[in-house]
Amino acid sequence: MSTYRVNLKDMQFVLFDVLKADTQFAALGLADANRELISAVLEESARFCETQLAPLNAVGDREGCTFVAETNDVRTPAGFKQAYDQYVDMGWPSLVSPPEYGGQGLPETVGIAVKEMINASNLAWGNFPLLSHGATNAIEHHGSDWQKQVVLPHLINGSWTGTMCLTEPQCGTDLGLIKTRAVPNADGTYAITGTKIFITAGEHDLAENIIHLVLAKLPDAPEGSKGISLFLVPKFNIDAEGQLVDRNHVKCGSIEHKMGIHGSATCVMNFDDAKGYLVGQANKGLMAMFTMMNSARLGVGLQGLGLSDRATQNALRYARERLQMRAANQPARPDKPADPIIVHPDVRRMLLTNKALVEGGRMLLYSAGLHADSSSYGKDAAAAATDNAVVGYLTPIAKACMTEWSIECTYNAMQCLGGHGYIAEHGLEQLARDARITTLYEGTTGIQALDLLGRKVLQLKGEGMQAFGAHLLQLVTDCMAVPQLASHAQELGKAAQELQELTLHIAQAVQKDGNEVGAAAYDYLMYSGYVVLGYWWLRAAKTVLDGGITADAEFSAAKLETADFYFARLFPRTRTHAAAIRSGAAPLMTMPESHFDA
Amino acid sequence: MSTYRVNLKDMQFVLFDVLKADTQFAALGLADANRELISAVLEESARFCETQLAPLNAVGDREGCTFVAETNDVRTPAGFKQAYDQYVDMGWPSLVSPPEYGGQGLPETVGIAVKEMINASNLAWGNFPLLSHGATNAIEHHGSDWQKQVVLPHLINGSWTGTMCLTEPQCGTDLGLIKTRAVPNADGTYAITGTKIFITAGEHDLAENIIHLVLAKLPDAPEGSKGISLFLVPKFNIDAEGQLVDRNHVKCGSIEHKMGIHGSATCVMNFDDAKGYLVGQANKGLMAMFTMMNSARLGVGLQGLGLSDRATQNALRYARERLQMRAANQPARPDKPADPIIVHPDVRRMLLTNKALVEGGRMLLYSAGLHADSSSYGKDAAAAATDNAVVGYLTPIAKACMTEWSIECTYNAMQCLGGHGYIAEHGLEQLARDARITTLYEGTTGIQALDLLGRKVLQLKGEGMQAFGAHLLQLVTDCMAVPQLASHAQELGKAAQELQELTLHIAQAVQKDGNEVGAAAYDYLMYSGYVVLGYWWLRAAKTVLDGGITADAEFSAAKLETADFYFARLFPRTRTHAAAIRSGAAPLMTMPESHFDA
Repeated sequence: MSTYRVNLKDMQFVLFDVLKADTQFAALGLADANRELISAVLEESARFCETQLAPLNAVGDREGCTFVAETNDVRTPAGFKQAYDQYVDMGWPSLVSPPEYGGQGLPETVGIAVKEMINASNLAWGNFPLLSHGATNAIEHHGSDWQKQVVLPHLINGSWTGTMCLTEPQCGTDLGLIKTRAVPNADGTYAITGTKIFITAGEHDLAENIIHLVLAKLPDAPEGSKGISLFLVPKFNIDAEGQLVDRNHVKCGSIEHKMGIHGSATCVMNFDDAKGYLVGQANKGLMAMFTMMNSARLGVGLQGLGLSDRATQNALRYARERLQMRAANQPARPDKPADPIIVHPDVRRMLLTNKALVEGGRMLLYSAGLHADSSSYGKDAAAAATDNAVVGYLTPIAKACMTEWSIECTYNAMQCLGGHGYIAEHGLEQLARDARITTLYEGTTGIQALDLLGRKVLQLKGEGMQAFGAHLLQLVTDCMAVPQLASHAQELGKAAQELQELTLHIAQAVQKDGNEVGAAAYDYLMYSGYVVLGYWWLRAAKTVLDGGITADAEFSAAKLETADFYFARLFPRTRTHAAAIRSGAAPLMTMPESHFDA
Repeated sequence: MSTYRVNLKDMQFVLFDVLKADTQFAALGLADANRELISAVLEESARFCETQLAPLNAVGDREGCTFVAETNDVRTPAGFKQAYDQYVDMGWPSLVSPPEYGGQGLPETVGIAVKEMINASNLAWGNFPLLSHGATNAIEHHGSDWQKQVVLPHLINGSWTGTMCLTEPQCGTDLGLIKTRAVPNADGTYAITGTKIFITAGEHDLAENIIHLVLAKLPDAPEGSKGISLFLVPKFNIDAEGQLVDRNHVKCGSIEHKMGIHGSATCVMNFDDAKGYLVGQANKGLMAMFTMMNSARLGVGLQGLGLSDRATQNALRYARERLQMRAANQPARPDKPADPIIVHPDVRRMLLTNKALVEGGRMLLYSAGLHADSSSYGKDAAAAATDNAVVGYLTPIAKACMTEWSIECTYNAMQCLGGHGYIAEHGLEQLARDARITTLYEGTTGIQALDLLGRKVLQLKGEGMQAFGAHLLQLVTDCMAVPQLASHAQELGKAAQELQELTLHIAQAVQKDGNEVGAAAYDYLMYSGYVVLGYWWLRAAKTVLDGGITADAEFSAAKLETADFYFARLFPRTRTHAAAIRSGAAPLMTMPESHFDA
């Protein structure tokens, strides 16, 4: 069985030393969110996650959720309900929600650190509260007063949970194709009819009620994605005061048998004249849904981080215990029959790759949270808009790269265990199966890549990228003057420059052939990911060298060593992505469809 | 459920057009192995695999093997026994075995094509006969006359199966640490005592008897790997004529719960004064075991190929059927609500990656088989030795790269299916779970990398690499004169040159620091893999342009298009591997053990 300990030391390094989040929170008027309070929250969360959630991870995988066909109910694995009750009793659901609806109003950045712990402890369990957060955001920003005053507090205190109902059998990415219909009732509500699939936490036994946010089409809606509206559909109908009345006509039809994340219920949801409430304006549902999706996508990025961290911790322990062969130059443990495998360069290569991706990814995700907080709470509207654009730029990178890297990190961890890596009892194969889903749900890596290059960079003129690029340029300039960092800074600066050139190149090429965006998108995304991570590793190294950090000397030295590793071993992956981008669309588009299996 | 069709057309292209295997067999005195016979064998095998084995793949995964603790028996999934009986009745086990012991004496290359089909159809089932082949080789080359005359024919006709018993709880890679003991009995046999783990097909209900080939130490054995002997230990004791007598003291203690390949039994085998026979010389067991391992490693490479092909076929079908979004420039199916996703560049990127790796890998593996045949049947001893060295060079590349690529190909196939990719009923997630084991068993990728760089290239002075390199240089020279291939040839020539320089660089660096081999090994292996595949894609393209091939124009055009794709999109991965090799051991070795989680 795999185990997990929260890396509080590194979280605090990222939050306080690298990001100086406490100072920034104070500047944003979030004075309560001081260092002491945040540290206390993180410690309390670590205790809950390590003792309550982490031990349920293997059992959730083994048992999975159970669908009871007779009653259309879903039973969660043993222990999930008790853990959820405790989570609610301790007030965790409301941590970062707005105080006017019962939330504690802490910064999103703190919520992100807590979510990392939940995901590393028990990703499947974490999926139940995960989507409530997105539903909360959508209702807060687009809902009616009644929805905000009556529904929101229940989502925020965790007595109810939320879902996102987008996908249908014939459409996932292409939401313009949805068939679910919403017909107005006489009382201002709507009758929703249709089938939604892949609905995470669509049915379960953890909470009193479930609030489905459902995309559907009004009778007179325009064709395609411009004719989609968002509806709030409760599992149990509610009266004006929010009391549960009777069962609404929405039922779970079945749950999917998945590769991993077995403890989370992935439901087929059948709506049969179910009562729904319009959220926001008619035909503007997609925009409201995007509010939920961005939050959910960062959340999935955090799942990647959590899985990667847990896998790495277990591989490291094994690498220190397992004795095989001798170190190349001289025995490291002459008293033992062989040396621990951590002495072998190839094992170190895998462990260091994981360390660089996990700790680098933590900086990336927490910084995205900080930009989100600056955007939400900043007084200067222009600066807030820029912060929002940076979040938009970082979201597809964080979602795609962190999940891709979670596949790599769980892969590496399994390789460190050799033949034991694929044996269920060690628990690493579960993490790999869980990770394998994260690059698919909430938009595949390919979709994130199109969001980044097609939308955020080309359509929106790269506002977020430019703001991030300005920070990067400043850091590169600063670090060129630091002898220990000059060569890393130079590499990073060169790559950022090349990425800019490639962006212009694609922007021109797409004028002639629309396929140039899709042809470059994946490699552009990954290249961007390594540049963003390079920025953070350089900044971590500079933070250490600048001094004044709270961590000890060993921790500081490890940061510098990991930064060196990152630039020596992982950053050169940009070379391959650059070559792929340069090769353009022709090698992909020349082959006629019939030749693929000619 | 995933489906599978044998790609006979491509197999024939590789065998007859690219490799001219029939001509070579004739030159080796294997005149029976003519084009007609081989084609007939492949067609018959395809029929068996598609109709009997492929449909059992999903059921094998769902049911898995069952351990019956009361009797120490293992039950295989429903249908496995019937399929095995048919396999034996049709004579498949003896296909490439020596006629003097009942084999049909066909070339190994043909056996490799058949194994590809078996693995793609049902990898788990294929593991039962797989290891018999290695056991056959070991006994044929190292066994006593009795072992050859009495035991071998049963392994060859499939009435018995074989195993390789190497790994113990405390040692996998480091076989010098084994504890299993062999004490001489008065009658010349040995009493074997110890525990072996991860024994594929160690116990099952398919065959009458199981022949375990077991590594153990004699009482007076030298320390470490120089004191290991190989023993033949039957499940049922046999008399002088090969009749089954009574149950030997070797029992299955349990079977492992694995990530994938559920239909194959991975056994803990307990030997308790079990009767064994020495194979080959005392204390020379490791050498005999290597004979088995090389064959098993190529076999695992073929598992990678089979999984990749099957995954790609299913992803391609989905990509042609699934309608989402419109093609970038203009609708491809204006009559439909959306275009099939095969129009999208990123989907094509994944499908073409798979196509290039599958068809390239097929050439790589079949050519390794042909070198093996040339070595086995060649009359010129020096040429045969060179062919043997080429097989030795290609084996770790084939094992590691084909299995790594099977992870990539099953990954890509799942991504093509989007959210459906991880749903069990589509069957792709099974292929991904199966693939995930192939980079771990029969020596991890890291171990293959050390075998390639440390042993085959540096210790053995790279005889195999040089022979391969001479072919490559000739091909590059030839293709430089062909306008359509000149730029690919140039790229390949440059990379081969760089790889040679890097080899020299490592050979020098290792004089100062033994860690330089391990630090470079993984990237050196992958770099070598892309060069070898580049050789084969260039050769396939040249074969097409030279004309006179049997396949149709569409097939020929597809080969040229895939070669272009390979050099544009996959070959540049060498850039990243070169940079990693150049960075040397320091970035991996500098960090003290304690800093990994400082």
